[in-house]
Amino acid sequence: MKIGILGGGQLARMIALAGYPLGLQFVVLDPDTNAGAGGLSEHLLGAYDDPALLAQLAEKADIVTYEFENVPAHVAEYLSSHTTVYPPAGALAVAQDRLLEKNFFRDLGMRTAPFAPVDCLDDLVRAVADIGYPAILKSRRMGYDGKGQVLIHSAEQLETAWLAMQDAPSIVEGFVGFEREVSIIAARRPTGAIAFYPLSENRHRGGILRIAECRSDDPLQTLAEDYVTRLLEKLDYVGVVALELFAVGNELLANEFAPRVHNSGHWTIEGAETSQFENHLRAILDLPLGSTRARGYAGMVNFIGGVAGDAQVLGIANAHLHLYDKAPRKGRKVAHATVRADSADCYRAALQQLADLALATDDS
Amino acid sequence: MKIGILGGGQLARMIALAGYPLGLQFVVLDPDTNAGAGGLSEHLLGAYDDPALLAQLAEKADIVTYEFENVPAHVAEYLSSHTTVYPPAGALAVAQDRLLEKNFFRDLGMRTAPFAPVDCLDDLVRAVADIGYPAILKSRRMGYDGKGQVLIHSAEQLETAWLAMQDAPSIVEGFVGFEREVSIIAARRPTGAIAFYPLSENRHRGGILRIAECRSDDPLQTLAEDYVTRLLEKLDYVGVVALELFAVGNELLANEFAPRVHNSGHWTIEGAETSQFENHLRAILDLPLGSTRARGYAGMVNFIGGVAGDAQVLGIANAHLHLYDKAPRKGRKVAHATVRADSADCYRAALQQLADLALATDDS
Repeated sequence: MKIGILGGGQLARMIALAGYPLGLQFVVLDPDTNAGAGGLSEHLLGAYDDPALLAQLAEKADIVTYEFENVPAHVAEYLSSHTTVYPPAGALAVAQDRLLEKNFFRDLGMRTAPFAPVDCLDDLVRAVADIGYPAILKSRRMGYDGKGQVLIHSAEQLETAWLAMQDAPSIVEGFVGFEREVSIIAARRPTGAIAFYPLSENRHRGGILRIAECRSDDPLQTLAEDYVTRLLEKLDYVGVVALELFAVGNELLANEFAPRVHNSGHWTIEGAETSQFENHLRAILDLPLGSTRARGYAGMVNFIGGVAGDAQVLGIANAHLHLYDKAPRKGRKVAHATVRADSADCYRAALQQLADLALATDDS
Repeated sequence: MKIGILGGGQLARMIALAGYPLGLQFVVLDPDTNAGAGGLSEHLLGAYDDPALLAQLAEKADIVTYEFENVPAHVAEYLSSHTTVYPPAGALAVAQDRLLEKNFFRDLGMRTAPFAPVDCLDDLVRAVADIGYPAILKSRRMGYDGKGQVLIHSAEQLETAWLAMQDAPSIVEGFVGFEREVSIIAARRPTGAIAFYPLSENRHRGGILRIAECRSDDPLQTLAEDYVTRLLEKLDYVGVVALELFAVGNELLANEFAPRVHNSGHWTIEGAETSQFENHLRAILDLPLGSTRARGYAGMVNFIGGVAGDAQVLGIANAHLHLYDKAPRKGRKVAHATVRADSADCYRAALQQLADLALATDDS
C-alpha cells in the first residue's frame, strides 16, 4: 500500500516514520530538493500544482493525503477525481478561508470571537465600531504562524492596517483576552469511529507555537470533544484534525482548525499510546484507531531558527529529539523535543530545561 | 552523519527508523533486492564480502555497524581499518564461536553449563561421559535460531549426532533444566557509560523466539547487570549488546551473547523510555544514553511465517504492529507486535490475544 503526500516537510516525514512499521510506502510531491521526507519516500520534485506530477502522484498512490491545508482547490479536485483523497476536499475549502471557517463554526453552534468580513476600509471601520478594540485584521486566506495578521488598538491604526492587507479579502475579529489556548486533536475513520486525544495547551510567541503540553483530565475536554465531533461529522471527515480553541473560564471559543496532523500534537509521538501520525494513517486506511491515552506527563518544545547540540538535548532525562533535516533559517521550525515522564516533577524539570535550550538558540 | 549497516533486514530497518529523528542517514549493504531497510536508506546491493561494495560502504559511512554477528573476520578487519566500526571486531570474533564464547564467559567468572570442545566422535564420547545426558551438540560457528544443534539423550545417539555436524568443529554442552530464559540488553558508550534495560523473559518454540516480556524489578536484574558489565568492559564494547542467560533458582548461567540489537528487546520500542535501536545509535555516536526504564508493562510477540491481518492486530487495545516488509516464508520472522499498558490485567489480556493470533498464522 502506497500513501501519497502533498508536501514533503516534517509532517510528511513523521507520517512516513509512523507508516513504515505498518508496512506502508510513501511518495511525496514537494518542490524542495531537500524535503525532509525525501529519504523516506519516493520524491516527486516540483510544484504542488504541476499537472504531470499530480497525475503521477494520483497514479502511484493508493490514497493521497497532505501535510498543509493551502492546497489550491483545483489540485484537490483533480486528485479527488483520480484517487482517494483524505481528508476530504470540503474540509480544505473551509480551512483555507478564515471567513468560511468562522461561519462554519458559528453554524455548528460553537462560540467564536465576534467577527466580520472586510473587503474595504469602510467595512473595517464599520465592523470595528461594533466589535471594539483591540481587534485583529486577518487576510482570509494563506495565513499561518501569525502571518497576514495586524493587531489594531485604536481608530488611528485602521487605515494602516487595511493598507497592510493589500486589498486581500479579509476578516476582522474581536481580540479575545483568553486565559489559555488549547487544541483538540481527533481522528475519524470512514466508518465514523472517532478517537480524541487529551487536550494540548499551547504557548505561542510571535505567532509561532513554542510549547504544547498534554492536559489529561482537563475540565474542558468534554466540551472540546463535542465541538470537534460536530466539525468531523459535518465534513464527513476522515483522518486527523486539529481544532484550536481559546479557553475563557468554562467556555471555549473556536479559533481555527487544521485538516491535518498538527504541531500541537507532536507530544503524542512518545507521550500517547498511539501517535497522531499513526492514527492519521490508521484513519485514512480505515484500520482500528489506536488508543489516544497519554502515557504519563508529556509535552513538546519547538526549536525555531536553530537547534541546540544533540548531546545537550539528549542529556536531559526523558527528552526525545526530533530533527527535521532542515537547514537553520530565521523563524524556521527545525526540530522539536518531547518530554514524557511518570512524575510531574521530572516532567516539569525536563520541559523547563528544554524550553531554556530552545530560547537560547531561538532567533525569532 | 551517515551510518553504514552491514545487513539491511528488519534490525537495520528499525535502527534506521530510530535514527531519522536524530537527523541520521543510512547506507546498508545487503544482497537482497527487497531488503526491509532498503526504502529507508541507500542500498548497496551485493554480497557482504564484496570488496568493491565494502570499500563504498567504508567511504560513504561515518560509522559502520551491523545487524548480525556472522561477519567474516576479514570483512570486519577491512572495515575497521578504513572507518570506525562499532561494536568492535573483537566482540564479533568471540560471539561467532561458541567455544570461544563459553571460555570467555568462564574466564570472566560467569557460570555456564558444563561444556567441552568436540572435533571428532571420540571427543564427543569422552566429553559426554563427563557431562552426562541429556547433552547438546552444537557447531561452534554460524548457529542461530536453534540451527546446527542436536539434542543427545543416550549413548546410542552419539554417532548420529556427530555425523549431523559434518565434521564441523563443535562444542557439547550439558542440558540445563532451566526455569526461565532471560536476556539483558545493555548499551555502552566509548566513554564507558553503560545503560541496562530491565530483563527480558523469553519463550522459544522450535529454537525460535516467540514471546519476550519486560521484567522490571526482577530479583536477578543485579546479577545480570554484573555479568553484562564484565563482558562490556572486557571487550571495550560500544553499542547495544544482548546477553542470553538461563535462570536456575537464584543463579544465572551465561548461554550466549549477540553483539547487536536483539529480538528479545523489541518491546523497548514502545515499552521503554528509549528503544534499544535509539540507544544503539546514541552509544555508537557517543551521545548521552537515553533512559532504559520500562513504561509500565511491556512485551512482544513474534509473527513467524505469516502475520494476521493488520486490522486484527491493531484492533487489540494497546497493540503496536511492526511489519518487516518481508514476504511470508515458512519459519521466517515477518513481523512482531508489542503491547504496552499501565495495568497488568490489560497487558496480559492483550499479550494473550496477540499470542493467539501469532499461533494461528505460525507455520513452523
